[in-house]
Amino acid sequence: MQLIGITGLPMVKAGDDVAALIADALQANNLRLQAGDILVVAQKIISKSENRFRVLDDVVISDAARTLAEEVGKDPRLIQLILDESVRVVRKRKGVVIVEHTLGFVQANAGIDQSNVETVNGKAQALLLPENPDASAAQLRSALRERCGVAPGVIINDSTGRPWRNGITSFAIGVSGFKPVQDCIGRKDLFGRALEVTQVAVADELACAASTVMGQANESIPVVLVRGVSLPVDEQASGRELVRPAHEDLFR
Amino acid sequence: MQLIGITGLPMVKAGDDVAALIADALQANNLRLQAGDILVVAQKIISKSENRFRVLDDVVISDAARTLAEEVGKDPRLIQLILDESVRVVRKRKGVVIVEHTLGFVQANAGIDQSNVETVNGKAQALLLPENPDASAAQLRSALRERCGVAPGVIINDSTGRPWRNGITSFAIGVSGFKPVQDCIGRKDLFGRALEVTQVAVADELACAASTVMGQANESIPVVLVRGVSLPVDEQASGRELVRPAHEDLFR
Repeated sequence: MQLIGITGLPMVKAGDDVAALIADALQANNLRLQAGDILVVAQKIISKSENRFRVLDDVVISDAARTLAEEVGKDPRLIQLILDESVRVVRKRKGVVIVEHTLGFVQANAGIDQSNVETVNGKAQALLLPENPDASAAQLRSALRERCGVAPGVIINDSTGRPWRNGITSFAIGVSGFKPVQDCIGRKDLFGRALEVTQVAVADELACAASTVMGQANESIPVVLVRGVSLPVDEQASGRELVRPAHEDLFR
Repeated sequence: MQLIGITGLPMVKAGDDVAALIADALQANNLRLQAGDILVVAQKIISKSENRFRVLDDVVISDAARTLAEEVGKDPRLIQLILDESVRVVRKRKGVVIVEHTLGFVQANAGIDQSNVETVNGKAQALLLPENPDASAAQLRSALRERCGVAPGVIINDSTGRPWRNGITSFAIGVSGFKPVQDCIGRKDLFGRALEVTQVAVADELACAASTVMGQANESIPVVLVRGVSLPVDEQASGRELVRPAHEDLFR
């Protein structure tokens, strides 16, 4: 398996055609998409292209947001955006708000980021997750099929903290072209016994793999090409398959 | 970044010299270790070489294990092994026991596995995690330095379920030769703002990357060579750095 960081993408702005930018960057890197390739794309450039910026000073703060902001010691404008993007607060503590995003992800701050986000006329902005990351991934896959003649699998990834473990890791917020959870049912171990553990979150594992190539401190490598993983094509696949339903979850 | 599955390792047995087996397999694959290489090694072959097998019929079952076994509907011999290996039960439900391992990992069944484990004279066995995975990783690193002239970073990986997300992913249970949590403090984002998120669990991300090459259903590829990640050497590093202390954990 090879992971190739795609360099040379310009800074993405609202309205940019990410598929066109990626197609150009692939060409500039002398790379041609091959069947089975998977592109891992940083959430930030998708969110930016979809203009998911919010100017903090424009946020109207509710009483609930003001109360929570005082409780955890955070900017009430940011807390309002977090509440707008989520269905419930899962845990809170000084400096920490972990919520269930409307998209199903349990994440600190609803995945809202202020790093690598430009100010507008000196005004601070925050960047929300894409409105529908699966649709964004499918759209990118389809646009790249048209431009390059080959439809890559697409993962839109973001990073998050975790229970029990130090350090953030990456995960897939949107997926297109292959099943993000691969089923091992029916496969046998080396001694012919059926495997107890049957489902592997391969899209999250590939998101993590790509993350080590992307780095964290800047977005000069927001796209990573993964080559040499053989996963069957599935046009109906969705990143939602990675979200464990609340009633099956012992930690929500 | 390249991930190369090391094929041709024999089935590992208790007492085997894993470093020797890996060195031979590298040679058979025409691979020479290079400075900066990281080897990801499946927990199972380390546990087997360290004879961490337990014959289920030899387990003496306590009252506590019998009660818990009835409650969750599992084999009381397995439950006894799980309790022996752990410091507390974090969650339980029919069919599920999630514990805090004596090593600090929060994992279903204390990481005890019955797949890919041979029976002995027809008797079922379970395989415990290595007693000290960091020491196992350090020993492997040192033995490979002697055999190959180059000391690779070493990750011993295992897979686990997670809160909130479907499917298992891999994580690092033992690390040697580099810091498993890389610190981004002091680095700036593209706009010169200090990054809010400062620590990346790079060893877990590399464990996941290797897992996609290892596959799950058999252990024909229990070792993956990761090449092209540049991480500073740290001889004191330990996989324990990945374990979030209980008092900082909102989910234990």
